[in-house]
Parts: sequence; structure tokens; C-alpha cells
Amino acid sequence: MTIYSINHYHKDSLIDDKKTFRENYTLFQNSVESELRTIIGNNPLGLYDMLRYHLGWQDAAGKSVKSSHGKLIRPVLCLLCHQSVGGRVVEAVPAAASLELLHNFSLIHDDIQDNSDSRRQRATVWKIWGQPQAINAGDAMFATSYLALLRLHDNTISDKKIVRSFKLLSEVCLNLCEGQYMDMAFEDSSSVSIENYLNMIMKKTAALLATSTALGACLGTENEEVVNQFFEFGRDLGMAFQIADDVLGIWGIEEKTGKPTLSDIVQKKKTLPVVYSLTASTGKDRQRLEQFYSQEHTEEQDMVKIVEIINRMGARAYSQQLEQQYYEQALSRLETISIKETDRSLLVNMVRFLMKRDY
Amino acid sequence: MTIYSINHYHKDSLIDDKKTFRENYTLFQNSVESELRTIIGNNPLGLYDMLRYHLGWQDAAGKSVKSSHGKLIRPVLCLLCHQSVGGRVVEAVPAAASLELLHNFSLIHDDIQDNSDSRRQRATVWKIWGQPQAINAGDAMFATSYLALLRLHDNTISDKKIVRSFKLLSEVCLNLCEGQYMDMAFEDSSSVSIENYLNMIMKKTAALLATSTALGACLGTENEEVVNQFFEFGRDLGMAFQIADDVLGIWGIEEKTGKPTLSDIVQKKKTLPVVYSLTASTGKDRQRLEQFYSQEHTEEQDMVKIVEIINRMGARAYSQQLEQQYYEQALSRLETISIKETDRSLLVNMVRFLMKRDY
Repeated sequence: MTIYSINHYHKDSLIDDKKTFRENYTLFQNSVESELRTIIGNNPLGLYDMLRYHLGWQDAAGKSVKSSHGKLIRPVLCLLCHQSVGGRVVEAVPAAASLELLHNFSLIHDDIQDNSDSRRQRATVWKIWGQPQAINAGDAMFATSYLALLRLHDNTISDKKIVRSFKLLSEVCLNLCEGQYMDMAFEDSSSVSIENYLNMIMKKTAALLATSTALGACLGTENEEVVNQFFEFGRDLGMAFQIADDVLGIWGIEEKTGKPTLSDIVQKKKTLPVVYSLTASTGKDRQRLEQFYSQEHTEEQDMVKIVEIINRMGARAYSQQLEQQYYEQALSRLETISIKETDRSLLVNMVRFLMKRDY
Repeated sequence: MTIYSINHYHKDSLIDDKKTFRENYTLFQNSVESELRTIIGNNPLGLYDMLRYHLGWQDAAGKSVKSSHGKLIRPVLCLLCHQSVGGRVVEAVPAAASLELLHNFSLIHDDIQDNSDSRRQRATVWKIWGQPQAINAGDAMFATSYLALLRLHDNTISDKKIVRSFKLLSEVCLNLCEGQYMDMAFEDSSSVSIENYLNMIMKKTAALLATSTALGACLGTENEEVVNQFFEFGRDLGMAFQIADDVLGIWGIEEKTGKPTLSDIVQKKKTLPVVYSLTASTGKDRQRLEQFYSQEHTEEQDMVKIVEIINRMGARAYSQQLEQQYYEQALSRLETISIKETDRSLLVNMVRFLMKRDY
């Protein structure tokens, strides 16, 4: 992994565009939400109740609930990139929805694999319907993700581009699985290097953001070089995004993240601050860390000590610095893509939105 | 569900073609096996060891084993149909492989959902690697199934046909999930009608055979009516095939089926003989059946009594009669499709192979 040197982007010039960005964001969210509801539909089979529940539209009893729709980061990113290469947003909405469905398939299965009881402050699908049905609900979400892509057919997208979209989607699926495999294998490994970790998040998180940007671009332009530039931009953004998530998983505030503070410590996840601390520590600290990450049970007092060590190692500063490098690398890639300045400004705002999470 | 009246097919005329059929079968199996090995590849990541293990190519330690490749029913059926509409077999091999991968994805997840320890006399993937990794291995198999379809691109298949193939594959995925949902939901339901049951197997089993025949056909012809005829032929064949499986699940011989006799009774599956018996029984018999299928634990002596009741209700004869009806319906559909007699004969042999399981 090489981290390139970075030019600082001038943030002051962006403040005026924030409103335009917000307006675009809301518009895109609404389009995608509406598309998602059309795809999932009102099928009365109980299987679809699980999907609608997971997407926040129903409660566990099947009653509609007023949902503030999710952030829909991947679809919005896809549509912004599509628009910036001159594509008509309406044409790419099915692909944007497809990305959200794929992301949600992985979340349903993740929750089973991590034995997580709650997500977004609600019980997880498996917690309500049991693991066998939840595995199947995830599979169904996976299938709808592909069916969503076929709705491109109703627009004016060529078969060639649809096949290209299927390729991007299928490749990222396999990347997600490879990343997930590595993430789970790391739990039982005592020697995860930072390189291993970066490779894992590249597949598990960054690949889907890279696919979101590339998919949006490839539906709007035939220029493969531009599509690749968008792919790389999305990948760096995804790396930064995951590292930021790792930092929040230890030091985040519950009200903002929806996850309890220290949740990643409780779950013994080998996130960047932990991998770094394991690598950088020596003597008793290292022994304590290794012991904690190899034992089954967790005592409250153990956790406090672990966080103390992680803090002492400077893991937070290290992680945030790496996050910042990827973030700036994403921005500098964006500067090299030949698009209109108004579109670039929207994308820069999107990057800032993702990194600050303060909008 | 209507079962049409059936003309008997003259079996005597087929004996001479049996050899040709066997030769074709072996040829197709070899092509598909080779394609599958190319798709899965030699990736050293442990994830792929799970896939190679499941497909019978490796042992749990990752050592290659001499495998007699599976029956590859769905791919062979696909290639036979493709050939019969005038397609060149080599062109459809990636699609045939894709069907096998999709089938195997569903098996990996099925085994977790059913809590099955063994398949084809080997430990199941989850039994060796645990449920979280096995869920992910199933997902990866799912993704490779789509990637396999993209290999049609390397042949001379048009983008239009590839998009059509993706549609067929994605639709059958969702059908599989719907069928699986129903199957699991039936376990907790005391009132499964024969209609419910038939609808469930239509989605869970018959849809994939219908897709196999239709996919083979649609890659070889533009004639949608012919594709539909193949779809319906495959669907009826799939219905017969599943009912036959249900009969074997109670009365089958372990050496032939690879599953212990009575295995479906032990697992309390609501298969056709059971659904029929529950519907047809009265008084004490019904009470005993209902009690057995609602209780958690199973005593050896309970099982004997349950089989006694199922036998007494004539459930075997009922099931075999329905199986026969679907089987003959499939054959009579085959008679109406406009294909060469030599191709028809191969397909009739395939139907007989599937139904007799005595080759």
C-alpha cells in the first residue's frame, strides 16, 4: 500500500455549494427510496416482511412505520458520479437501488455472523425471525439486487452497458465475500499485519464504494479511463470511510453512531486501532492485548485496560492520520477527473459529508 | 394445480438410444466440470477451499481428492436443451456451470438452515468451518454463479442473450428464496395443504429445473414460444423429481440415495407423503401425526408409529401416482416441441434417468 502525497483542497470555496449539495442529496434519496419500494413491492409472502422490516419500512409485526430513510450513501454517490459524466439521473436510479440492496444483503448476513442483536437501534432480522430465515432473507435481498439492475432495461440503457453493470456487481459481490472471509479469519489470528488489514477493508468496504462510483460513471460514459478514475476515487474514499468507522467503533458517541461506545472492543474486532496497537506494542502491553484478543469472555475491567493501552499507543492519532491520507487522496483523484466544476463541487461536498458525518 | 391427462410414451423405442445418451451425458459432464474448475480456480484464499471442498474436489485439509464428479443434472439438462434447439454446446457451457453453482449455493445454505451434519456422506461446510464462514461461502458460491454467466461473453453469445440469461438466473434465485421461506415456515405450521406444498416445491425445486431447460433453449434460439415450452417441460420434470425425492426421503435405501432411510421423518420435513397423511387422516391417527410434527424431540418408537400411519394412509401410492403424472406430463410436453427426433430421444432418456435413478 502506497499513500501518495496530497494537496490540500480549499474548503472555503465549498461552503456556498453546500445548499445545492443538500438539495441534490434529498432529491436522489427520494428517487432511490421510491425505486426500492417498487422493487421490493407489497408481496404478502412473509419473506418480504423481513426485507421491508430490515429496510426500516415496517415493524416486526408487519405494520408500516414512518421511516426516515437511510443515508443511502452508495446510491447517492452512484447518481452523483453518473450526473457528473453527463448522464441523466433518472436512467441510473435502478443501478443505484441495486447497490443499496447489495449493501443490505451483506448487513443481514453480517449481523448473523457477528451475532449482533441490534442494528440502527432495532432488533436484527435473525434476532426476530431466527437464523435460518434470516440467512434466506439475506439471499433474497441479494437476488433483488440483481433484479433491480434488470430494471435498467426499462430505461434507455444499452444491453452492453447492462452486461457491464452485471460484471461490476458480480465482481464486487465476490470481493465482499473475500473481505468478509478475511475479517472473520482475523478474529482467530494473532498476527494480522496492517497490510492484511488494509487488504481486507479494500475488499469488504472500499470495493463497494468503488463500484458505486464506477457503476454511476459507466452508465453515463463510454470512456473507460474516466470509469477507472471514478473507481479509484471511490476506492480511496471507501478506505477512508472504513477507517473513520473503525475510529468511531471505539471512540464514537452512541447518539451519533447508533452503536454503543467501545462496541468494537466488546466484539473483539480487529479494527485498525487494534491491529496497530498489536503491532506497535511490546512487553506487558502486547501480552495483555494478545491475551484479550484470544480469550472467549470479556470482563468490563479488561476492556478498560485494553482501551488504556490502545490510547497509550497513539492508535487513534495513527488511524486518523491514515484516514486523512486516504480522504485527501480521494479528493486529489477527483481533481484530475475531467468533469464540470459544479459537478466536482457536489462530489467534494459528498466526500466531506461522508468524512465529517456532521450534516 | 391441474394435472392434465397423459399419453403414455413408448419406452421400447428408446433402448437403442441409451448408449448415445450416456455418451452425451459423460461428454457434457466433463465440459461442465472443467468449466467449474476454471471458474473457481486455484485461489489460495481459504474461502475458496470451502468452495472446492463442497464441490468434492478437496478434503477438509485442502488436499485434492479424486472425485467422481456429481451428477450435474441441471447443467446437463441445460446443454441437452441447448443442443436440441440447434445451439452449439460449447457456447452454453458457462451458463450450464452457472446453474450448478447456483444449486450448490443453495445447498450450502440449506445445510445450515436444516442443521444437517452431512451431505453426500461427507461433513457439511458449516460442520467443518462453522456457520458464519459457511454462510459467507454460500454467498461466494452465489456470486461465482453470476460471474460464470459473464463468461458467455467470451463465446459468441450476444449481449441481449446475456441480459436474458441474467434475468432467468435472478428470477429463479428469488423463487428459490420464496420456496425456501415457505418450506421453513411449513415446519411451524399445522395446516399445510397439498396446494401449499405443490406451490412450495414449484419454487424451491421445479423453478431451477425449468430455468435450466429454458436457459439452454434461450441461448440457442430467438423463438420465445419454444423457450416457454422448454420452461414448462423443465418445471413439470422438476415437480416429478421433487416428489420422487420425497418418496426416497422416507422409503429410499441409504446406499442408493446417500441419505439414511427415514431421514425426512427424523428431520420432521413436511414432504408430500406427510402433508397427504395429515390431510387424509382422522381421529387418533391425525392426533398422533399432528403431535409428532409439533413436538421438538423425536423418540425412535414414535417414528416407527408415524411411518406405520403414513403407510396405512396410502401416502406412498398417492405420492408415486402424482410423481408419475408430472413425469408423463413432462414427456407429453416434450412431444409437442418442434425439435429433431434424435434430440427428443436424448431428452426422453434424460427424463427417464432422472426418474428411475437407475443408470
